[in-house]
Amino acid sequence: MSAFKDFFKVKTIEEVLSLDALFPLLETEEIPLAEASGRVLASDIISDINLPGFDRSTMDGFAVVASSTFGASESSPSFLSVKGSVAMGEKPLFAITRGEAARISTGGMLPQGADSVVMIEKTEPVDDHSIEVFSSVPPGNDIIKKGEDYREGDIIMPTGCRLRPQDVGLLAAFGCDPVNVYKRPVVGIISTGDEIVPVSSNPGPAEVRDINTYSLSGFAREAGAIPVPFGIAKDNFDDLLAVCKKAIDRCDIVILSGGSSVGSRDFTIDVLSSLPDSDILVHGVSISPGKPTILAKTCGKAFWGLPGHVVSSMIVFKVIVRPFIEHMGGVSETNRKQLHIKARMTRNISSAQGRIDCVRVKVIQSDGVFFAEPVLGKSGLINTMVKADGIVMVDMNSEGLEKGTEVDVVQI
Amino acid sequence: MSAFKDFFKVKTIEEVLSLDALFPLLETEEIPLAEASGRVLASDIISDINLPGFDRSTMDGFAVVASSTFGASESSPSFLSVKGSVAMGEKPLFAITRGEAARISTGGMLPQGADSVVMIEKTEPVDDHSIEVFSSVPPGNDIIKKGEDYREGDIIMPTGCRLRPQDVGLLAAFGCDPVNVYKRPVVGIISTGDEIVPVSSNPGPAEVRDINTYSLSGFAREAGAIPVPFGIAKDNFDDLLAVCKKAIDRCDIVILSGGSSVGSRDFTIDVLSSLPDSDILVHGVSISPGKPTILAKTCGKAFWGLPGHVVSSMIVFKVIVRPFIEHMGGVSETNRKQLHIKARMTRNISSAQGRIDCVRVKVIQSDGVFFAEPVLGKSGLINTMVKADGIVMVDMNSEGLEKGTEVDVVQI
Repeated sequence: MSAFKDFFKVKTIEEVLSLDALFPLLETEEIPLAEASGRVLASDIISDINLPGFDRSTMDGFAVVASSTFGASESSPSFLSVKGSVAMGEKPLFAITRGEAARISTGGMLPQGADSVVMIEKTEPVDDHSIEVFSSVPPGNDIIKKGEDYREGDIIMPTGCRLRPQDVGLLAAFGCDPVNVYKRPVVGIISTGDEIVPVSSNPGPAEVRDINTYSLSGFAREAGAIPVPFGIAKDNFDDLLAVCKKAIDRCDIVILSGGSSVGSRDFTIDVLSSLPDSDILVHGVSISPGKPTILAKTCGKAFWGLPGHVVSSMIVFKVIVRPFIEHMGGVSETNRKQLHIKARMTRNISSAQGRIDCVRVKVIQSDGVFFAEPVLGKSGLINTMVKADGIVMVDMNSEGLEKGTEVDVVQI
Repeated sequence: MSAFKDFFKVKTIEEVLSLDALFPLLETEEIPLAEASGRVLASDIISDINLPGFDRSTMDGFAVVASSTFGASESSPSFLSVKGSVAMGEKPLFAITRGEAARISTGGMLPQGADSVVMIEKTEPVDDHSIEVFSSVPPGNDIIKKGEDYREGDIIMPTGCRLRPQDVGLLAAFGCDPVNVYKRPVVGIISTGDEIVPVSSNPGPAEVRDINTYSLSGFAREAGAIPVPFGIAKDNFDDLLAVCKKAIDRCDIVILSGGSSVGSRDFTIDVLSSLPDSDILVHGVSISPGKPTILAKTCGKAFWGLPGHVVSSMIVFKVIVRPFIEHMGGVSETNRKQLHIKARMTRNISSAQGRIDCVRVKVIQSDGVFFAEPVLGKSGLINTMVKADGIVMVDMNSEGLEKGTEVDVVQI
């Protein structure tokens, strides 16, 4: 009935995601470790020391030869002579043997001969040079042995790992400062539409303010990228071409949203086709909302055309663009996996077959159980994303979800 | 048997968390909307316009009076005359009546008289001035009505909300630039211990590099704060007093970690006691690891003494300090709730009664089900935090968790 039925040669989400292999990983850079939280490691880190480098006490108390305490109890304490005190950060210059003890603080180095620590609470001073011990401790008690945390030669952290605070702490332990990481992807963001006005404007009677620049910049930053807004392009070929050229020149990834009117949608394709070294890889994805999504490889860069609808553009970003950004930013496959919230649907949801339906949901906790309450509404209504805590992706082969079904909620 | 048994007057986590009311919320500031993602709103935002401000098409097609299409089908189309085209961003200068249509693009303003849109795929041009419509559409089809997203006068976003990208998009729609937010808490971070050396040093035989400054800075940044490292203080009263004074002067919150040797633990309390306007609120918390935690209110600022053990300090931060930072940073109670991963324990875990046990776990997915695999190890071993995806908090009254129990995993 209409030529528009064939307009989209729709690809599945998996097909689109597999195209990431066509785009190279970004270059790497050295940065101060203090700025490394959230960055992606660009080489395996191999431990060049044992951690700790010495047998360490984990308690305040006395370093002992464990066998000196065997059989000790409250009614029958062991009696030990105190050979000296371990100074923090210094190697003890004395050794101990059976029947002897050394005062030690948490983190102190065990003197030679000692193989265990008895905590101060289990001891009582007799005089300045001797103590009673009221508890029998096994060898290795309340100590961390040399190399127990990491051994010299271990791979302590692999390439492609997004560094969490504890990971940065680990790198600190090994003195990895500066650290070699992938550059943050630079993501150019362009809004289009003759009806779109800047946030600083008062919209006229048929105008709306630019939302997508702000929401997509925020999501890009969350994905580890540096967003660079290029403003609002008018719905005409020359304007769009000029801003796209500028963005492709300066960025690793360009995201254009809007251009969802028939005319300007053609402009996006026309502009992409007219750029040198440009290959349109995707023109339509089996996702709802978000079907009219475009991906091109242009001058080696990834160029995305997202729908202008505020919700569609965010969902396509979250589900499809974000994994691409992470790929180009060096995040390894295992590190890209997200942990989901498990929740039960509060009502039936119908869904069309042949596409992934992304249902916005609010997560409600009741008696320790999470429930996913669908937030219904058109993909042009931003309130559906503002009210939602996450999205539930309904399978292509499913006709819907029944009330009570357990689902994975992707947090948004 | 020992005075140390009474050393800690241990408080529960709830008791400690309820002390946040003693600390005032930070001041507010105006910032550019483009930088507002992750920041905390400091006033209710009330909509001063309808969103959208006009009836808008959500499809490319024709604006119609719905009743003109009633009964239309593929075999019996309706015939409509095309009155004109709606230019994007402009108020149509013509109206339509029954039997008429106007070309319209997604986002365009409906002309007067129109109450519905029929998508282009359901139409066929007859000549330049008329179309056939093959589908009957109800009133309101494929349009967003004026004020359907938000109505003038609605509270669109409340004080205390941490802005997500979509929330920033919403504020853009209402032209809220700049936006009024709470200042980010400035968190001073001090490591102590004579055995601790800077990351740039090669540790001597009884020394270790400073981990806590790096891990706690990262966690502070995650909590929305600005971490300010004050380096490594020596285990003596004068050094510690000097750095604590400087940190309290410059920061909203100070976190000192270490000082876990008997001597220096006293130093922390001594230093806090010797500062003017200083009140020690907490000296011991029923959490494991992390019991020897100190909280003081000093010159109106929150001063935390955390254990030096790398894992204990991170867990106390995550469970206790973070909610405090969020409180002072203006995050409302409802916005502080975290969604947890639900998982099943892969093995039995025993736990002491009378304290919350924080078990580090790795989350493993198998057949769509999450399992929590305990990462065992001492709280001085950072590898237990690096291998873990989250922590499971075992209740004070519980003697442990059985294999298969469903637990909440707090992501770390």
